[in-house]
Amino acid sequence: MSETIWSDQEKQVARNAFQKAYERETNALITQLAEMIKEVENIYAVWEIHDYLSSKRHQIDGRYYLNIKKYSEENTANSEYSTLIFLFAELFKEKWLCKEDLVGLSDDKISKIVVLSFI
Amino acid sequence: MSETIWSDQEKQVARNAFQKAYERETNALITQLAEMIKEVENIYAVWEIHDYLSSKRHQIDGRYYLNIKKYSEENTANSEYSTLIFLFAELFKEKWLCKEDLVGLSDDKISKIVVLSFI
Repeated sequence: MSETIWSDQEKQVARNAFQKAYERETNALITQLAEMIKEVENIYAVWEIHDYLSSKRHQIDGRYYLNIKKYSEENTANSEYSTLIFLFAELFKEKWLCKEDLVGLSDDKISKIVVLSFI
Repeated sequence: MSETIWSDQEKQVARNAFQKAYERETNALITQLAEMIKEVENIYAVWEIHDYLSSKRHQIDGRYYLNIKKYSEENTANSEYSTLIFLFAELFKEKWLCKEDLVGLSDDKISKIVVLSFI
């Protein structure tokens, strides 16, 4: 399989999109947490919040923290960026990314992201 | 060492005190959680709350959930109740129990709880 080429401009678009998705998802969690607390009537509801945070933290760790360093480096290889297509499709599906965030990527990359987001 | 005798009335006092401490500590956690959320400005503060809840849950599990069943049984042995002295001293130290909660226990039990709470 031939390697997809990512231009420097595309790498910058990808980094910005990745950062935006991270900010949206974490800000949404902060808002959601504040709402959840309002509904707490007993300690069991607190343990449910704890379970939910455990799950979200695990997900956000895997999605962003492990990747942020990788994609913040200027000399990150094309092959590394190509795996972003799958992550972006996931983020697009969950609406942490929108089409506007992808402007600047080649049409084939955007198409792949959108198509994969329907899987 | 001779076994301390716990009368049925003392066992009831102990069960009530235990339940009160549990309610006070868990209600305090609910209030504290609501206050912590108000201060959240970024996702790292959410992870700090998550760490705090992990620690409190572990503590409350060990303190109460493992014991509630044991002390809810009418025929729980004296020897089991005697270990409550140490737990009550801890709860007294942390102000989840007060002297009024111990009224009905023999003077020697109350003295032990109070003295141990200073350690």
